[in-house]
Amino acid sequence: MLNIAVVGAGRIGAIHAANVAASPDANLAWVCDPVPGAADKLSHLGGRVGLDARQAIASDDVDAVVIGSPTPTHVELILAAVEAGKAVLCEKPVDLDLARARQCQAAVEAAGGRVMIGFNRRFDPTFAEVHARLQSGEIGQLEQLTIVSRDPAAPPASYVAVSGGIFRDMTIHDFDMAHFFLGEVESVQAVGQNVVDPAIAEVGDSDAAVVVLKAKSGAVATIINNRRCAYGYDQRLEAFASAGMLEARNQHATSAAVSTATLSGAANRVQDFFLQRYADAYRLELAAFVKAVAEGGPFSPSLADGVTALALADAALESSKSGQTVLL
Amino acid sequence: MLNIAVVGAGRIGAIHAANVAASPDANLAWVCDPVPGAADKLSHLGGRVGLDARQAIASDDVDAVVIGSPTPTHVELILAAVEAGKAVLCEKPVDLDLARARQCQAAVEAAGGRVMIGFNRRFDPTFAEVHARLQSGEIGQLEQLTIVSRDPAAPPASYVAVSGGIFRDMTIHDFDMAHFFLGEVESVQAVGQNVVDPAIAEVGDSDAAVVVLKAKSGAVATIINNRRCAYGYDQRLEAFASAGMLEARNQHATSAAVSTATLSGAANRVQDFFLQRYADAYRLELAAFVKAVAEGGPFSPSLADGVTALALADAALESSKSGQTVLL
Amino acid sequence: MLNIAVVGAGRIGAIHAANVAASPDANLAWVCDPVPGAADKLSHLGGRVGLDARQAIASDDVDAVVIGSPTPTHVELILAAVEAGKAVLCEKPVDLDLARARQCQAAVEAAGGRVMIGFNRRFDPTFAEVHARLQSGEIGQLEQLTIVSRDPAAPPASYVAVSGGIFRDMTIHDFDMAHFFLGEVESVQAVGQNVVDPAIAEVGDSDAAVVVLKAKSGAVATIINNRRCAYGYDQRLEAFASAGMLEARNQHATSAAVSTATLSGAANRVQDFFLQRYADAYRLELAAFVKAVAEGGPFSPSLADGVTALALADAALESSKSGQTVLL
Amino acid sequence: MLNIAVVGAGRIGAIHAANVAASPDANLAWVCDPVPGAADKLSHLGGRVGLDARQAIASDDVDAVVIGSPTPTHVELILAAVEAGKAVLCEKPVDLDLARARQCQAAVEAAGGRVMIGFNRRFDPTFAEVHARLQSGEIGQLEQLTIVSRDPAAPPASYVAVSGGIFRDMTIHDFDMAHFFLGEVESVQAVGQNVVDPAIAEVGDSDAAVVVLKAKSGAVATIINNRRCAYGYDQRLEAFASAGMLEARNQHATSAAVSTATLSGAANRVQDFFLQRYADAYRLELAAFVKAVAEGGPFSPSLADGVTALALADAALESSKSGQTVLL
Repeated sequence: MLNIAVVGAGRIGAIHAANVAASPDANLAWVCDPVPGAADKLSHLGGRVGLDARQAIASDDVDAVVIGSPTPTHVELILAAVEAGKAVLCEKPVDLDLARARQCQAAVEAAGGRVMIGFNRRFDPTFAEVHARLQSGEIGQLEQLTIVSRDPAAPPASYVAVSGGIFRDMTIHDFDMAHFFLGEVESVQAVGQNVVDPAIAEVGDSDAAVVVLKAKSGAVATIINNRRCAYGYDQRLEAFASAGMLEARNQHATSAAVSTATLSGAANRVQDFFLQRYADAYRLELAAFVKAVAEGGPFSPSLADGVTALALADAALESSKSGQTVLL
Repeated sequence: MLNIAVVGAGRIGAIHAANVAASPDANLAWVCDPVPGAADKLSHLGGRVGLDARQAIASDDVDAVVIGSPTPTHVELILAAVEAGKAVLCEKPVDLDLARARQCQAAVEAAGGRVMIGFNRRFDPTFAEVHARLQSGEIGQLEQLTIVSRDPAAPPASYVAVSGGIFRDMTIHDFDMAHFFLGEVESVQAVGQNVVDPAIAEVGDSDAAVVVLKAKSGAVATIINNRRCAYGYDQRLEAFASAGMLEARNQHATSAAVSTATLSGAANRVQDFFLQRYADAYRLELAAFVKAVAEGGPFSPSLADGVTALALADAALESSKSGQTVLL
Repeated sequence: MLNIAVVGAGRIGAIHAANVAASPDANLAWVCDPVPGAADKLSHLGGRVGLDARQAIASDDVDAVVIGSPTPTHVELILAAVEAGKAVLCEKPVDLDLARARQCQAAVEAAGGRVMIGFNRRFDPTFAEVHARLQSGEIGQLEQLTIVSRDPAAPPASYVAVSGGIFRDMTIHDFDMAHFFLGEVESVQAVGQNVVDPAIAEVGDSDAAVVVLKAKSGAVATIINNRRCAYGYDQRLEAFASAGMLEARNQHATSAAVSTATLSGAANRVQDFFLQRYADAYRLELAAFVKAVAEGGPFSPSLADGVTALALADAALESSKSGQTVLL
Repeated sequence: MLNIAVVGAGRIGAIHAANVAASPDANLAWVCDPVPGAADKLSHLGGRVGLDARQAIASDDVDAVVIGSPTPTHVELILAAVEAGKAVLCEKPVDLDLARARQCQAAVEAAGGRVMIGFNRRFDPTFAEVHARLQSGEIGQLEQLTIVSRDPAAPPASYVAVSGGIFRDMTIHDFDMAHFFLGEVESVQAVGQNVVDPAIAEVGDSDAAVVVLKAKSGAVATIINNRRCAYGYDQRLEAFASAGMLEARNQHATSAAVSTATLSGAANRVQDFFLQRYADAYRLELAAFVKAVAEGGPFSPSLADGVTALALADAALESSKSGQTVLL
């Protein structure tokens, strides 16, 4: 049994805490959140609750730390946990500042720390299946990857203003998926759009974007993002290869379909809340973390993968501003 | 080039005449219809036009006859054509009276005549593909066949009153499909319904029905009929076998699909007019007829198949009235 | 919190026990199974374990009983629990003998007992959605219901021999669904088949069947069963109504699809284990039971529904043997 | 009846000639091809045959000219026809050289000539439906268009070498579609790939590409091309808008689908020959041309549209070489 402290009791922290509590191989030792009362809301899950993450991290009865606190705290908490010899699963992104993320990576490597980054989509059963079948050679060599990722509704501009921008905040997941599927990326092109909310334009960010990444292998990934999607949480992927294509299609709460005088075979609205769409992914991500800690195996996605995704985000931002392809 | 006379210039006769005219292997010699002016409307197709089918049938420049006239005339015209030594493609049903159809069959056999019955669905590319793949053994032995056949809208009760009833008029196509897929049928159960138009009940007919047929092979076919279907012309088939299933799905005029705030992936209304849905089937049926005449090969569906379908219709009617399984 | 005793620690009992333990509104008080050691395997769920169901049923700290023991014990346990004033959720079927089930129903009614029957499919989110949308009038009046229900693999003939036969053992679920959708059924026709395993024929049972039920409303339900299905657990339903159709389609573990040189858009094998396919249904069934007990609301499906399903099974068996429509 | 001369009797010319011959509103006056014997192969369609296009163009019995000859002849033939006062339907591209295409456009405009360019996809029933429904406002404002266009197999490098390159030869159709859907395009980014045939790389061309176009409206179109597609002729489009999405899905020769022990619902290979996939489009394109000539209405796509598509192709080529966004 791995004793885990969960840092952060917000929306994501609550998921991780519940998954730890439900895991047959882990024990929820602590839930910490500096906001008074926040961690208490998760006390029914059975762990100790506290305000100070550092106390939990340092505690002898904690083997590993899951970090689900706000982005600006990630680096500090990672380093504290590594210093204390604890394994870490940290939510994305590592940091909004690439240089700082790289310093963190260097420090962790120097200390021999073990840090996994929470790109949960790698663990989504459908995406994972497509990846595994592609790796198995079932459809030959990957040539073109298309990732469609659209949120049901745009966040308020006030959130967007401090989010790091669409590429670091939203596309970051897709950058990791592209990297996961394509391997090393050589160049990035990006086009930003403002089609959803003028307030997002006013804070200097795009609310939709298309990014094209070319890999060393010659394969190209296209990412299509939008902060708003009328029909739900649009999460699709097509891996086109020399001998076929594997698709990850959208998902629905039920398999009901209707036909009427004007249409036929209509499924329901696409499953539209990320906590439902990726519930399995979060659970399987935690299981992979627990297993890797227990067996001493490699962490995937690693801290280095987290830094790579951030570097791709920065490159996309630069390209969207300069109109030039950015080489990595 | 096979010189063909088309008898009947109504909706179906017009299709046959156009297909004959367009065939690279046939020549439209005549179009006959006793209704003054009816055949003239097809004169642009290039054949001679006339009122008297017997004149065309007897003509030396006619090798074969396509009969698309009203059902009560079928037997007489078949026998006239056979007597004149002409090959025949006759629309379904052979006759509404089973005894009379059997007499016709006996007379044709005695005379060595060659008669094909126009069960066009055997030639529909999708149904034909499912049949061929099943015959090839791709999914093992057929165990359960489901045929869904629903018309977009019910005919007027005045038509229904002289139609021979739902089993002889509408289900007859499905009886032929069941026979085509299952081989010899041993027993029939049927349930009639009145759910669409009270006027149809008043003329003593059902407007929906479910028929279950058991074959000598042990396989069972289920036919589900309805005179009305809100979403179009519902024409589906599932062949369930020991190693899998082959489906014939509904078809649409285009491959467009829409997703909105309330639904996703909605195709258009199912293609809803039988002349469009089965345009290819009518064309391929004629081509098969022309080829069989030219090569002297067997006719399929044969006159005997036409009589079998009618016998199944009669059995279904009897079962729907008696509540008993009818053995054939 | 409702204190629940689960009787039976086999495959189904284990599901119920886990769902009780996970319920926010229920407490797992006991798990009983007369097989030594069986209940102990579920001791990690937190309830007391025992061999004697009657002890648990009588216990003051038990408010309700979930019966998941073998069918022959159902009636006795239902009556014991009702006598002890406990609410009951009992697995289907009530009994294999209709007369005995009716006696049980009479006794329960006389005692004012409250018994729900575990037809879990009513709680499957997809079937429940189709039912609710139909009830709402979204597609008009129901005319024809088609239920396809095929198991991935046939049970051994030794099980079949004591199962009560395909209609009471397998179709029973579909009879309840038909009844749930159509209301009162007036007549039943059935055809049995032997296409899967000769050993099943030897024990006098069918291994596939088609059943047609006509309701008082005029609607007809067709049930298509097979003990074996190469492509998985085939669980579909089509509700055809005056203004459209609602379908419950098959489900897959992931939404991956593949296209290759020979095929396109192929989903994975249909989800093939009933515990996965109906995991949500079992959970929601328990929640409905707990809620109905707490609120004193009606139980659905009721004990009377359980008796009705059994009566339909008996009628189908009789019809399959006599070839006659059986009136209810 | 519009009297039409078809210039070019190759694969495309033969389609146009057959469509003219079958049109109720047009007459096939001539078929010309300088290759001895080529036009004769189409003599059965009923027009005069000849070697010299100029003779047909000048002929008094010709009202309009359909140009399906090799690209290098297009400009000269367009100008000859315009000079003779004949309406023109010319296959894409106008020319491989943008400057020459612009000169042609200027000359035609100066002469008041009427020239339509054969971007047949605008007339494909599915694409046309998606366009029309989008224009109707059914799904709100267009934000992101995705065009997937992959050929079943790459042409030989010898053809590629004289084709003008992937952007002018293959993507040209997609540029017209993007322009058709998005209106005026402001900027182009492109990435070329060499993943299919090394011989294509040797002649200096890409065999796959991703192009991103940004329109004045703020909408973005992404075009994904590949010279080879294992599963057939991949021709899809997604129009994502503020209130929903309209898709044009791939098409299949039949609606058959198979389920087996390892997969479910597999359609056949995607329809893989462009003459089949776009048979309706070619026919409807001709009908639109004939109608526009008869009614004096505007030509769409116009010669200007043809020049625009070529300008987009040149911009894409430049961007793929420079790595910079090209402004138009």
